[in-house]
Amino acid sequence: MTPLDRAVAELSKLPGIGKKTALRLVFHILRQPKEYAQALASSLVTLIETTRFCSQCFHLTNTPLCPICSDIHRDSSVLCVVEESRDLLAIDRGGAFRGLYHVLHGSLSPLDGIGPDQLKIDELLTRARKGDVREVILATNPTVTGDATALYIAKLLKPAGLRVTRIAMGLPAGSDIEYADQVTLARALESRHPFVFND
Amino acid sequence: MTPLDRAVAELSKLPGIGKKTALRLVFHILRQPKEYAQALASSLVTLIETTRFCSQCFHLTNTPLCPICSDIHRDSSVLCVVEESRDLLAIDRGGAFRGLYHVLHGSLSPLDGIGPDQLKIDELLTRARKGDVREVILATNPTVTGDATALYIAKLLKPAGLRVTRIAMGLPAGSDIEYADQVTLARALESRHPFVFND
Repeated sequence: MTPLDRAVAELSKLPGIGKKTALRLVFHILRQPKEYAQALASSLVTLIETTRFCSQCFHLTNTPLCPICSDIHRDSSVLCVVEESRDLLAIDRGGAFRGLYHVLHGSLSPLDGIGPDQLKIDELLTRARKGDVREVILATNPTVTGDATALYIAKLLKPAGLRVTRIAMGLPAGSDIEYADQVTLARALESRHPFVFND
Repeated sequence: MTPLDRAVAELSKLPGIGKKTALRLVFHILRQPKEYAQALASSLVTLIETTRFCSQCFHLTNTPLCPICSDIHRDSSVLCVVEESRDLLAIDRGGAFRGLYHVLHGSLSPLDGIGPDQLKIDELLTRARKGDVREVILATNPTVTGDATALYIAKLLKPAGLRVTRIAMGLPAGSDIEYADQVTLARALESRHPFVFND
């Protein structure tokens, strides 16, 4: 196997990258100064060598406690529970939420062999039962497994006497009712709320 | 910049890979065994460290003479001239052509500052004038710059008394006349040939 074939083979293991795209990437890399391939390679090795889970919220980080958990300006009384680190990043990008997070690393899916023990649920319960947590927001995906996971956790947290909420489901901003699917429409109607007058 | 941000930044320098895709790739890499990131990184470094141009045809290779030029079973009397190594790979994949290649590494484009000196044209002329070459097939792209490059080379090769040909232009196999563009249709009509009866 030539170095070219090997690079193509390794690149095409990435999701969404087939043989043709991998070949295009390889030719692009070969046209760049040598430093680019070296910088890319070293960034990947550093990534995999230094990235760990935050000891508190299990978000990906390169420090023992992630930057969010170590931020003293954030409200530690509200925990937002998400399935994956990328969900955390998506929510945090908006800047609307200033509490802390908890990453489960998946959702309950018995058919795939993923039960409560495979997720960071015990760790969430321990955290939620500690002194200052007042509210747990369940922000798992609005899917079968995400809904099941939220329900499972909500039941476990009930005895702790905390406020347990679920992120709202409804029509996405800027979308068209005509093209919305029936489940989304049903949920948007269910979750209707009194009109807020701004005057 | 965290290692995660750095890996995203380096990956998103690749063509067709934006910030979101880069982030998805990074999360994928983090879910794989460590060995994958290391294999990918080392394949890229090896690629850039060992890949050179073939001293005869200027195809990318990791040996002084590329495997095609060193293959004694190929017909060294026919040279197929292409713009890029990826064109060579596309043609050679078909297996229909058993001669040798010559990679120009671009096409004439005065507006982008690419003249004959930036391409491997002198090297082609030297090669073509040597003893055993009988035919030069100009397989540059059927574009403005590819056509201009083919014409330029054809004129230079004329005095050498070789057979100089251009790959045929016409309708792609399996395509629909209804949706063909006008230039392709005009060229397909121009290049019409007597019907071949198979009986």
